[in-house]
Amino acid sequence: MTGMKPFKTLLPRAEALRIIEGNIGRVGRIEEVSIEGASGRVLAEDVTAGFSVPPFNRASMDGYAVRAEDTFGASGFNPNRLKMIGVQHAGEFFEGIVGKGECVQVATGSPVPEGSDAVVMVEFTKLDGDYVEIQKPAYPGANISPVGEDIKTGDTVIEEGEMLTPAKVGALAALNRETIRVYEKPRVAVFSTGSEIKPLGSDLSPSQIYDVNSYTLASIISANGCEPVIKGIVPDDRESIEASILDAASHDLGVFSGGSSVGVRDLFGEVVEELGEVLFHGLQVKPGKPTLFGIVEGTPIFGMPGYPTSCLSNAYIFLTPALRAMAGLSPAEPRRVAARMSARFVSSSGREQFLTVRVRDGVAFPAFKKSGAITSMAHADGYIILPVNLDVIEEGAEVEVTLFS
Amino acid sequence: MTGMKPFKTLLPRAEALRIIEGNIGRVGRIEEVSIEGASGRVLAEDVTAGFSVPPFNRASMDGYAVRAEDTFGASGFNPNRLKMIGVQHAGEFFEGIVGKGECVQVATGSPVPEGSDAVVMVEFTKLDGDYVEIQKPAYPGANISPVGEDIKTGDTVIEEGEMLTPAKVGALAALNRETIRVYEKPRVAVFSTGSEIKPLGSDLSPSQIYDVNSYTLASIISANGCEPVIKGIVPDDRESIEASILDAASHDLGVFSGGSSVGVRDLFGEVVEELGEVLFHGLQVKPGKPTLFGIVEGTPIFGMPGYPTSCLSNAYIFLTPALRAMAGLSPAEPRRVAARMSARFVSSSGREQFLTVRVRDGVAFPAFKKSGAITSMAHADGYIILPVNLDVIEEGAEVEVTLFS
Repeated sequence: MTGMKPFKTLLPRAEALRIIEGNIGRVGRIEEVSIEGASGRVLAEDVTAGFSVPPFNRASMDGYAVRAEDTFGASGFNPNRLKMIGVQHAGEFFEGIVGKGECVQVATGSPVPEGSDAVVMVEFTKLDGDYVEIQKPAYPGANISPVGEDIKTGDTVIEEGEMLTPAKVGALAALNRETIRVYEKPRVAVFSTGSEIKPLGSDLSPSQIYDVNSYTLASIISANGCEPVIKGIVPDDRESIEASILDAASHDLGVFSGGSSVGVRDLFGEVVEELGEVLFHGLQVKPGKPTLFGIVEGTPIFGMPGYPTSCLSNAYIFLTPALRAMAGLSPAEPRRVAARMSARFVSSSGREQFLTVRVRDGVAFPAFKKSGAITSMAHADGYIILPVNLDVIEEGAEVEVTLFS
Repeated sequence: MTGMKPFKTLLPRAEALRIIEGNIGRVGRIEEVSIEGASGRVLAEDVTAGFSVPPFNRASMDGYAVRAEDTFGASGFNPNRLKMIGVQHAGEFFEGIVGKGECVQVATGSPVPEGSDAVVMVEFTKLDGDYVEIQKPAYPGANISPVGEDIKTGDTVIEEGEMLTPAKVGALAALNRETIRVYEKPRVAVFSTGSEIKPLGSDLSPSQIYDVNSYTLASIISANGCEPVIKGIVPDDRESIEASILDAASHDLGVFSGGSSVGVRDLFGEVVEELGEVLFHGLQVKPGKPTLFGIVEGTPIFGMPGYPTSCLSNAYIFLTPALRAMAGLSPAEPRRVAARMSARFVSSSGREQFLTVRVRDGVAFPAFKKSGAITSMAHADGYIILPVNLDVIEEGAEVEVTLFS
């Protein structure tokens, strides 16, 4: 009859997050990946330019490479006529030198021939046999990207620890980096406990339900830069719980859900304490009171509530920051929208409450009929946070909804 | 000397987006995937419940299952004493019936035994030998999730066309769905054109640069629910361009970048017109004027600017909506922040301008020194849109920055 004890002290959310943050480190293992699939990964090296980009003075417009002084005073009514001495195709190299009164046709991206110091856009020119009418003056340097304008040899272009974006992947390509060293995705072991929980595909007896939490947790883990390893369901006995906690400790993080059946909740906490250290057990939040966080053999271990919506809700709030910190990603920046409450809501939990809502036309509707149904959660848009000391939100009151995605 | 023609008419952004939207359809091919990796995918079937969840009346708290009327009038000072006739472990099935004056110990998630109609939380009880002191009354139904509360047999739980979230994956697991039918990711062929562009790993002559756009485009394509197929660099001749456009047409979408070298830009448009139809060529936006959109053999074809930052910038604005529509994803909801301009900015392009900026402490700094350098873009946070008719933003003026991610 042990295990029926209520929690002694409940930790506020901010304190729990501080404890998590203080005990999570970035995973340092490194792998080399192709830049083709590297967007979203975290760089494990400083990327330094081995050459300048552009590697030559480059035309940034289609037009004519000229000596700028030859264009001074030109206008549509009084164009300056320059002799076209050749064509500079992109990807080729024009050998001649642009002299006084001369020009060379250039295309966007092509080198600017020697002797010229400006490009006049084709829009302000007119071709007339071997001559080009220049209808607008250009200043020296006009429409030219000088060598090294983008990247100079030796520049550190992207630094260790930065997350690769499409533009950063582009910078890697510009520097001829086909592969790149990134941090490995942290491996997160996921276990479900509770003897009423059965694996998908099995037959259920009338008191059993299917494992939901392994799949919601794996989705959250993947979405935050980590690699989930679904380990299945742990039998409700000390030996099995011990073995699975030790198995979890061989990963970068272990996440257990459930253990809500009589005795198991405390048994789990006891075993974590025995093998390592429990840093908190019991949170002043609703849903999600029974959340546990500890360290075993240097590996952080989460014990999440067994109720699927409580488990998922707490995963968004407490697990996500841990996952992102391990992966080296910056904290998720939540999107928030203002809304008005659809109806009066009364809470008297004495805990900070996360109220899951749907938002329609600026109105927030509580998503749950009664207890935490996973289907209601499936169509919720986000949540409202009710402080510990707030018991009532009136109908029509303005609330801030944090969106799930 | 063809191909040096300026664009005749420039299409405004909104009109271009309308044309794209009107010519993009969702890809209808279906595949079956494990729910383990299904988050983010788009459902290709209605998911209907084959059984109710919970499949039994379930305790939602640890405590004692009772007949509610046996608790009426109970208090801490005057507890009601009930005889405990057994323990209902989660995952097992208690065979007895709770009679008048009796109770059964239950755990969160376990079935509620026959005869009982309420659960009293363990916090409001005291065990005393074979008896339990009930210190607080419970109403009928208290702390019980009735059968089918979450999902009823025959309910459509998730509908075709919905994107799977962690919670929806959880609902699938609750219904014992190990695999699920989703729409295939659209396959998008990516080509670079321009004879100055060379594949990564090759040696460059002094007028050549590496292919950047294939990699930035592939990153954008992956991030928006599609599958990039990098096809490499297309030689600058009519036959090669024709062959690659026909190759593109055998995918769900084709994206070409470049073709900025003399003649190629118009050659590309000519070939699209010859093989199919050009829907627009030339946009009233800066950067990104030379963007083309057409249809060949039923497949939408994009021709993006060759300049890496123009290409990427236009991919965010014009390609992303097309990718998401094909994948069946709802439009990306951009995050926007208010900022103040770091310095006066003058634009006189006569086009709508996308000004790439870094945001630091609420101040927006234009990201580019001069032309569109990919490294500057790599460290930009987002962009400001300057309308066609706005030429100047004053220092300190409030601007709205659309963030890249």
